[in-house]
Amino acid sequence: MVSGLRILGIDPGLRVTGFGVIEKHGQNLRYIASGCVRSNSGQSLPERIATLFSGVSEVIATYRPDEAGIEKVFVNINPQSTLLLGQARGAAIAALAVGNLPVAEYTALQIKQAVVGYGKAAKEQVQHMVARLLCLSEQPRADAADALACAICHAHSRALFSAE
Amino acid sequence: MVSGLRILGIDPGLRVTGFGVIEKHGQNLRYIASGCVRSNSGQSLPERIATLFSGVSEVIATYRPDEAGIEKVFVNINPQSTLLLGQARGAAIAALAVGNLPVAEYTALQIKQAVVGYGKAAKEQVQHMVARLLCLSEQPRADAADALACAICHAHSRALFSAE
Repeated sequence: MVSGLRILGIDPGLRVTGFGVIEKHGQNLRYIASGCVRSNSGQSLPERIATLFSGVSEVIATYRPDEAGIEKVFVNINPQSTLLLGQARGAAIAALAVGNLPVAEYTALQIKQAVVGYGKAAKEQVQHMVARLLCLSEQPRADAADALACAICHAHSRALFSAE
Repeated sequence: MVSGLRILGIDPGLRVTGFGVIEKHGQNLRYIASGCVRSNSGQSLPERIATLFSGVSEVIATYRPDEAGIEKVFVNINPQSTLLLGQARGAAIAALAVGNLPVAEYTALQIKQAVVGYGKAAKEQVQHMVARLLCLSEQPRADAADALACAICHAHSRALFSAE
């Protein structure tokens, strides 16, 4: 059996970084794993960044994806939050880069468009459609669903650009 | 001869991340190295983050510091710039964490206070005082000077908190 292309989707955040792993076999997508890496708000920022970096590195070592998609973060109304989110995202991208993964970036709009067909879809719709597209018996949690949606978005974008 | 405590200072930025390495022997500070890691603005953000991460990792592997100090970034007027700077800083902190370095954070105010004695000192004053404090024959470039100033600030703060 030819193994499919394994895609890791990342939904970055300082408190919680969601991850989702899927496999693309031709036009079919298969669920592999999902979950999240949490950092402890009682720790210093460098310690939290270290936790996120190691967590994402561990996900890569465990599931050995071929490519990665990461959600582009939006600029928050609160500049401090933007700064914290940026740092979490930088750590996650660094982990993907160290794992030698090609990394593609997608906006929340592109991701929602890819899974729900509507760029302004609600979180619940994303969770519902991710479960349907990956034939899951129950809906994944919001963080994991967003990461899986990002992986699905990458699988679709790849299909557009390659001659599969 | 007892070797001193080796401190790495980092001035994070997406385009240029400055670094400075000094050694603290009792009350004396000795210059070891300084320079900067540059990312290519023609590359994708993940590629630039990867360059910064590898560059800082290389500095750690080369100079083997014991501790690190990193400048706290300020919230820019432009939220996009804040986000980019945050990501660069996240990658640098991740590299320090992977290198198992304890990381302390200092504001620009604390750093300037430590080297110039005045929190709102101009860049040129920082360059001048860094050269004087480390007995350098010429002034370091601005990025390297800021990173060296951060390392000096860390050396002084350590002295305050320990019984040296």
